[in-house]
Amino acid sequence: MPDQQRFVKMVLDAWHAQVNGTTALLDKLTDAQLKQEVATGRNRGTYLVGHLTAEHDLLFPLLRFGAPLFPELKPVFVDAADGPAVDAYDVAQLRARWTQVHTALNTHVMALAANDWFMRHNNIAETDFAREPHRNRLNVLITRTIHLAHHRGQLMLLSSK
Amino acid sequence: MPDQQRFVKMVLDAWHAQVNGTTALLDKLTDAQLKQEVATGRNRGTYLVGHLTAEHDLLFPLLRFGAPLFPELKPVFVDAADGPAVDAYDVAQLRARWTQVHTALNTHVMALAANDWFMRHNNIAETDFAREPHRNRLNVLITRTIHLAHHRGQLMLLSSK
Repeated sequence: MPDQQRFVKMVLDAWHAQVNGTTALLDKLTDAQLKQEVATGRNRGTYLVGHLTAEHDLLFPLLRFGAPLFPELKPVFVDAADGPAVDAYDVAQLRARWTQVHTALNTHVMALAANDWFMRHNNIAETDFAREPHRNRLNVLITRTIHLAHHRGQLMLLSSK
Repeated sequence: MPDQQRFVKMVLDAWHAQVNGTTALLDKLTDAQLKQEVATGRNRGTYLVGHLTAEHDLLFPLLRFGAPLFPELKPVFVDAADGPAVDAYDVAQLRARWTQVHTALNTHVMALAANDWFMRHNNIAETDFAREPHRNRLNVLITRTIHLAHHRGQLMLLSSK
């Protein structure tokens, strides 16, 4: 297996494991559990589902796959902390958006050639990328996988609430 | 920058960011906070610090760097759930072991040549590795970084307790 293909497999395996594990966790959690705070005074499950969905939806422009599906999520779930604006979304809507974003994203992720993963992401200029070639699309997926694990660890705490 | 070196940098940057971020969090949390459960009925901070320290100590044999520094941690913090055995360790001891393991580990991590990261880890036989070359040392570091982020997300919840 060529080097680049092997690297891409390592990162994509980790990404899919986290996404699928989180999907399974969300399927297991009830709506009532997702409405709870993960700890007293901290984010609610609903906010975290919206936050992860919005962040992953922003991968479309960042990885140059296209426009986000639900740009209206960013002001509520990325730019702002958990608050009353989150209550405009019911849990079923958030679950549906989670699924739609990951289904659409997966199509792009699976179709991208190994070599293209090592091209720059959208938040770095060509000139900077020449000096910093590690700031590529695959690196974005590494950091998003870690970010997802961080919040999945918190969402798991809802299963005993 | 050659492909392997670039990819190693991506993964090592992510590992160091998680380890350093967790160290900063532990420095900020008081002993009293670390003795709390991250959520009602779930792991205490002390267990999670011991768990992460023990798992990272096991990277010595897994990455073929040598023997673990504190093999006695595994039965308490890896093989068993949080319980009375954890109370044999005071918080200062756990903090010290966290530091010792990561200082020693860092020396090995920084010294390993890019090419050597793509050699097999210790839990896979040579014959299987020939068919599955993604099961290498660097892949272990990817999965441990994700595991660390998972528990760091939980430890963060202690900061408001």
